[in-house]
Amino acid sequence: MSIIDGRAISSELRASIAAEIKELKAQDLSFAPRLVIIQVGDRPDSSTYVKMKLKSCQEVGIDGSLQKLPDDVSEADLLARISELNEDASVHGILVQLPLPAHLDEERITNAVKQEKDIDGFSELNLAAIFKKNAAAKFIPCTPKGIMYLLKHEQVEITGKNVVVCGRSDIVGGPLSKLLEKAGGTVTVVHSKTSPEQLKFYCSNADIIVSAVGRANFITGDLVKQGCVIIDVGTNYVPDATRKSGQRMCGDVDFASCKEKASKITPVPGGVGPMTVAMVLDNLLESAKRSKKA
Amino acid sequence: MSIIDGRAISSELRASIAAEIKELKAQDLSFAPRLVIIQVGDRPDSSTYVKMKLKSCQEVGIDGSLQKLPDDVSEADLLARISELNEDASVHGILVQLPLPAHLDEERITNAVKQEKDIDGFSELNLAAIFKKNAAAKFIPCTPKGIMYLLKHEQVEITGKNVVVCGRSDIVGGPLSKLLEKAGGTVTVVHSKTSPEQLKFYCSNADIIVSAVGRANFITGDLVKQGCVIIDVGTNYVPDATRKSGQRMCGDVDFASCKEKASKITPVPGGVGPMTVAMVLDNLLESAKRSKKA
Repeated sequence: MSIIDGRAISSELRASIAAEIKELKAQDLSFAPRLVIIQVGDRPDSSTYVKMKLKSCQEVGIDGSLQKLPDDVSEADLLARISELNEDASVHGILVQLPLPAHLDEERITNAVKQEKDIDGFSELNLAAIFKKNAAAKFIPCTPKGIMYLLKHEQVEITGKNVVVCGRSDIVGGPLSKLLEKAGGTVTVVHSKTSPEQLKFYCSNADIIVSAVGRANFITGDLVKQGCVIIDVGTNYVPDATRKSGQRMCGDVDFASCKEKASKITPVPGGVGPMTVAMVLDNLLESAKRSKKA
Repeated sequence: MSIIDGRAISSELRASIAAEIKELKAQDLSFAPRLVIIQVGDRPDSSTYVKMKLKSCQEVGIDGSLQKLPDDVSEADLLARISELNEDASVHGILVQLPLPAHLDEERITNAVKQEKDIDGFSELNLAAIFKKNAAAKFIPCTPKGIMYLLKHEQVEITGKNVVVCGRSDIVGGPLSKLLEKAGGTVTVVHSKTSPEQLKFYCSNADIIVSAVGRANFITGDLVKQGCVIIDVGTNYVPDATRKSGQRMCGDVDFASCKEKASKITPVPGGVGPMTVAMVLDNLLESAKRSKKA
């Protein structure tokens, strides 16, 4: 069994992004990849993610900045801000940090970001391209893209393999299942309506299992087959008296029992998470390069 | 075993569409649902489909008309024609008969139809809405919609059931698998990269099998479990010396061996086919009613 070291792979990728940006800047003094994050309100978890993204930007030479808006900003004002950034040619990517306060229509806001700057890949047109057979999405959403990168990095064969994706969200399960299908996998999407017996039926036959349901211990060793590859997208918190905080972070996968059977497995933390941040940078660089060509 | 009689169910539905249109016309003399079909060139199969659609329109009180364009029409001219029809408030639905000659970009043409008039449901925005969890598509593509209608009509439970969709096309397999997933099914999409052993693994566990791969005898009785529901979307032609034409139409499913095990099964012809045409009318009526409200 080998543990897929998302931290190391992400760090390698970020180093190569940094090197490429450095080179592009050397070739063209006007090359200045720029990301703007819009954060509405002060959710502490959102602030943590934003800070992490900005720090990563800085490390690779991307000009990342935060535009904070008050908790009670009107939808019209937020849309106006997005529209300004859409028009600003110096901006290559716009991230609206989710979740938004309840009075704002997340759907409408997400779709307002110009497709060329939607490096999260959440807008409808981007998703549509992922789901269409021969269409190329402008941006692949960061978590699914990070997972596909990990599988490729680890030389995991997908064509003709049995794949189980647990969870059917628009951000992870939906697009990821389609990407895996396009890569030739036979994909089953299991979800809250799938019975435990069926879950076992599918998992025990799966060559690759990706879990993104947000439930600790959802995938246990008895469900999976010897030699499978397990990707854990979950971030859950469980009580842990040995920790100062009284809790610890864990994924959807019971690591202890699954690692005995898996050929490769991602840990939580340190698996998929670091890849997601790297893909924000990767998408932003892609966008900046495209706008340079245009 | 019961045979799902698509002809009878379609005919019932078309009668109810006709009755509704009659009533709406009686209430409002200006109510005049109108469909325009654009056909490029003279493919005989396309001409047959177009004729069938126009005849069905007439039967239910929809003003259906055909605009024929020469085989060598330029993309610009075709787009201009679509744009005119997009602007024409008297038109509620625009169908561009596919396939188009090779010099025309099907993707671009399909996306040019205004979402509000895209009763085929093939435009990117429509597809995106099908694939997003909580978004409502303006129109469900006719074949998947017809299949969902058949399953509902036959009171086939989907929630928590194991579903196999064979084929991953943008027109049938892709959207249908998502509709079945949204309805609570645990869906596996099998396709050309799925091995025969895997196909058997999934099919022998399936409560519902939908086949849309376009290969005669793709699903045989030995693959399926007792009591399953089988929906056959295939239209294939196989040699048949007893027929004048020397061939006969058949589906993807070996009807003789499968009907022994299925609880319900659609025949070909007379299963899914007639539903697709009915759904063109259904979507057109929906569009006309929406434009009345607007």
